[in-house]
Amino acid sequence: MKNMLVAQSGGPSAAINATITGVIDAGLASSRVEHVYGALNGIKGVLNENFVILDDICKKTETRDLLAMTPAAALGSCRWKLKNPEEDKREFEEIIRILRKNNIGYFIYTGGNDSMDTVYKLSVYCREHGVDDIKIMGAPKTIDNDLGETDHCPGFGSAAKFIATAFTEIACDCYVYDIPSVTVVEVMGRNAGWLTASAALARNEERNVPQLIYLCERAFDTERFVKDVKEALDRENNIIIAVSEGLKDARGNYVGEEMKSGKEDAFGHKYLSGIGKYLEQVITDKIGCKVRSVELNILQRCAGYMLSETDIIESRNLGAFAAVSAIRGETGKMSALKRMPGDNYQVEIVLADLSKIANVEKTVPLEWITEDGHDITEELVDYLRPLIQGEVRIPYKDGVPEHFIL
Amino acid sequence: MKNMLVAQSGGPSAAINATITGVIDAGLASSRVEHVYGALNGIKGVLNENFVILDDICKKTETRDLLAMTPAAALGSCRWKLKNPEEDKREFEEIIRILRKNNIGYFIYTGGNDSMDTVYKLSVYCREHGVDDIKIMGAPKTIDNDLGETDHCPGFGSAAKFIATAFTEIACDCYVYDIPSVTVVEVMGRNAGWLTASAALARNEERNVPQLIYLCERAFDTERFVKDVKEALDRENNIIIAVSEGLKDARGNYVGEEMKSGKEDAFGHKYLSGIGKYLEQVITDKIGCKVRSVELNILQRCAGYMLSETDIIESRNLGAFAAVSAIRGETGKMSALKRMPGDNYQVEIVLADLSKIANVEKTVPLEWITEDGHDITEELVDYLRPLIQGEVRIPYKDGVPEHFIL
Repeated sequence: MKNMLVAQSGGPSAAINATITGVIDAGLASSRVEHVYGALNGIKGVLNENFVILDDICKKTETRDLLAMTPAAALGSCRWKLKNPEEDKREFEEIIRILRKNNIGYFIYTGGNDSMDTVYKLSVYCREHGVDDIKIMGAPKTIDNDLGETDHCPGFGSAAKFIATAFTEIACDCYVYDIPSVTVVEVMGRNAGWLTASAALARNEERNVPQLIYLCERAFDTERFVKDVKEALDRENNIIIAVSEGLKDARGNYVGEEMKSGKEDAFGHKYLSGIGKYLEQVITDKIGCKVRSVELNILQRCAGYMLSETDIIESRNLGAFAAVSAIRGETGKMSALKRMPGDNYQVEIVLADLSKIANVEKTVPLEWITEDGHDITEELVDYLRPLIQGEVRIPYKDGVPEHFIL
Repeated sequence: MKNMLVAQSGGPSAAINATITGVIDAGLASSRVEHVYGALNGIKGVLNENFVILDDICKKTETRDLLAMTPAAALGSCRWKLKNPEEDKREFEEIIRILRKNNIGYFIYTGGNDSMDTVYKLSVYCREHGVDDIKIMGAPKTIDNDLGETDHCPGFGSAAKFIATAFTEIACDCYVYDIPSVTVVEVMGRNAGWLTASAALARNEERNVPQLIYLCERAFDTERFVKDVKEALDRENNIIIAVSEGLKDARGNYVGEEMKSGKEDAFGHKYLSGIGKYLEQVITDKIGCKVRSVELNILQRCAGYMLSETDIIESRNLGAFAAVSAIRGETGKMSALKRMPGDNYQVEIVLADLSKIANVEKTVPLEWITEDGHDITEELVDYLRPLIQGEVRIPYKDGVPEHFIL
C-alpha cells in the first residue's frame, strides 16, 4: 500500500476543492491507497513536508460534500515556479526524497498552466532519472478556461455562471432610470476572453444585455469603441458593456496602461486593473452621458454561492479520474474533458498529454468573435451555455454560507 | 371603488419589488380597490401619467412571487426632488389633477429619505389644501438602513447578507497564500455605516474576518489606520478590512478625496468611489506588503440571488400594510418596523410619522463602535444578525436567475 498526495496551486476557484474531493473519494475507495495526504500551499508544502491527513479529516461523506462546495483552495496555494532541472535539480531531488520518505506513490497536482508546467517538469525528471515508483498526475483548474487539450476547465463554469448572473442583476439595476446611461463591466482575463464572453449568457428574449462585448483576443480600438457606444445609445437608453481586463491595442499594448499599477507577479504576469475605469473616463470625455464602471473582481472566482452544478460534478470527477489513473500506473498526464458530438451536452473524461498543455494558453478562436468586433457568435454561446447549468444548494449557518475550513 | 397607485423611487434594492408586491396583494384583496396602477419611474411617471395596470399584469400568484424576488425596481425609479410648494406649487397641483383624473384614492410611494420627503410634502400640501379624497402613504426602502422611526429598512437585510457572504468568500480567497496580505473591501455607505458593520456577520468560531472595521460615523485617522494594520499583521498573515465608502477625517472631509470624482447627483450628494484604492495605496507606501482593494459595488444592492428571507417577507408585509392603512383612511404616514423586546427576534408593523422621517439620516450610534475605533460592539452584531436570516430559493432558467421584467 502506498500513500497518495494531493496539492493545489495557482489562483483560487470555486471548484478546485471539488477536484481534491474527487481525489480523496478515489483514495478512500482504493485498497491500494493507505492515506491521502494534502500538502499545504502547493509544491511549497511538499518541499516543506507540510502535510495533513485528508482521508482522516474527510472521513464523513458530509465533510467531503461541504469541501466540494467550498470556494478557493482549502489546502492553500502558492505561486512557486520550479527551476529548470538542467540549471538546478536540487528542488526535484528534494521533492522525490520527501515523497519516498512518506511512502507516497501517487501525487496529484491541481492547477492551471503554471501548475501543469510543474507537473510536466516533475514527470519528465522522474522519467529521465528512472524514478518509477511515483506516479504524477495533473488535474485541471482555472477559471480562465485557457488550458489546452480539455474542452473546458473546472472552475470556469461556476465563474461563468457568476458573471452571467451578475449581468442579469446589473441589467435590473441599470433599467431603473430613464436617462441614457452606460455601465462598463470589467471581467477577469488577461489573454483569454472566455469569462468576458460568458456575459452573453445573461441574454434572453426579454433582456438583450450586454449590448457590447469586447474580448482581449481582438485588438481594441478606442475610437471605434466610442462609435459603437454612440450607436448603441441611439437605439437604447441603458447600455451595458462587457470588457476583458486584458484588452490590448493593435500593437499589443494594454489599453489605458498608463492608469494601471504595473506590478508583476512571480511568473512575470502584470497585475491588471483599471480598464473599466479607463473606459468610463473615455465615455465621460467623448460622450458625456451618465457612466459608471463595475469591476467584478475576486468574487468572480470565489463566489461559492453561485456554483454551476455541471462544473462541480465534472471537477470532482476529474480529480477522481486523475487519482484512479495514477493508481493504475499512469504518470505525466492530466485528466481532461472531451465533449461528445451531438445536440445534447455530454462529456467524457480522458487523459491528456502534459507536454501539449504546460505553458500553452488556449484563447477564444477569432472566428467566434463577430466581424464588427463587439460581440460573440452563436457558436460560442452554444459552447458556453451547458457549462453553467444547474444550481448547487449550499448549506447556510446563521445567515451566511458554511465552508470547509481546515 | 377607487384605484390605487404605487411607485418606486431612489436607488435600487433587492427588496423594493417585494414591497410593491405587498401593495398589489393588498389591492387585489380589497373590495374597495378597483385597479392597482404602477407609475413608471417614480413621481416623474405620475407627472407624465405613465401608468401600467399591475393587478392585471400580476394576477397570478407565481407572477407576484417572481416580482417579489426580482432585484432593483421593476417600475423604474427616479431622482426627482419636488420643489418647495411655497416657491412653486405647480407640480403639486399637477399631481393632484392626474390622480383625480385617474380616480386614484390611494397613493403608495416606496423609497428612502428623499422619497419620504416627497411623500411628506405631498401629504402636507393635501392637508393644507383640503384634498381629502387621496390618501398618501410611504413604504420604506433603503439598503443604507438610515431611515428614522423604523427598526430597520427593507432591502438592508439582503444587502447585509450579500456583504457578510462576500466577506466569507473573500476570506476563503485570501487564506490560500501563506504570505502576508491585506485586502481592503469598500462597502457602500456615505454617512451611515450599517452596511459596513454587516461585514462582522461573516465571523464565526473558525473565521475571524474582517479583522478591522471602519465605519463612516467615526473620524478616520490614516496614521492610526496604518498602525492598526501593522499590529494586525503582527498577529496574522491575511488581514481583511471593511471600510465605508464615506470615511471622513476629523475635519469632516472625505478621506482621500483628491482621488475621487467629485461629481454630484440631483440631491447634491457626491458620488463616491475610491476609498479602497486610496487605502491600498497607503498600505503599499507605508507597509509594503501584498495589498489589494475590492469594491463590492452595485451587486450589494441588486444581488437577487442573495436575498434574506426575513427581509423579503418584511418588505412585502410593509407594502401591504401601507396599502391597507391607506384604504382604512390613513394618510401622510409610513409603514415601519418595531422590534419587540426579548431574546427572540420579532417585529410588529406600525405607522410612523413622516415629519420625523423625511430628510433625517439614522446613523450607527457611536456607542456601537468599539473604543479603539476599528470594530463594532456585540450589541450591534445582535441588532444585525436576525436581519440576514433565511434564504430565498429563486428560480433559474437556462443557468441564470429568472426575473420579473415589465
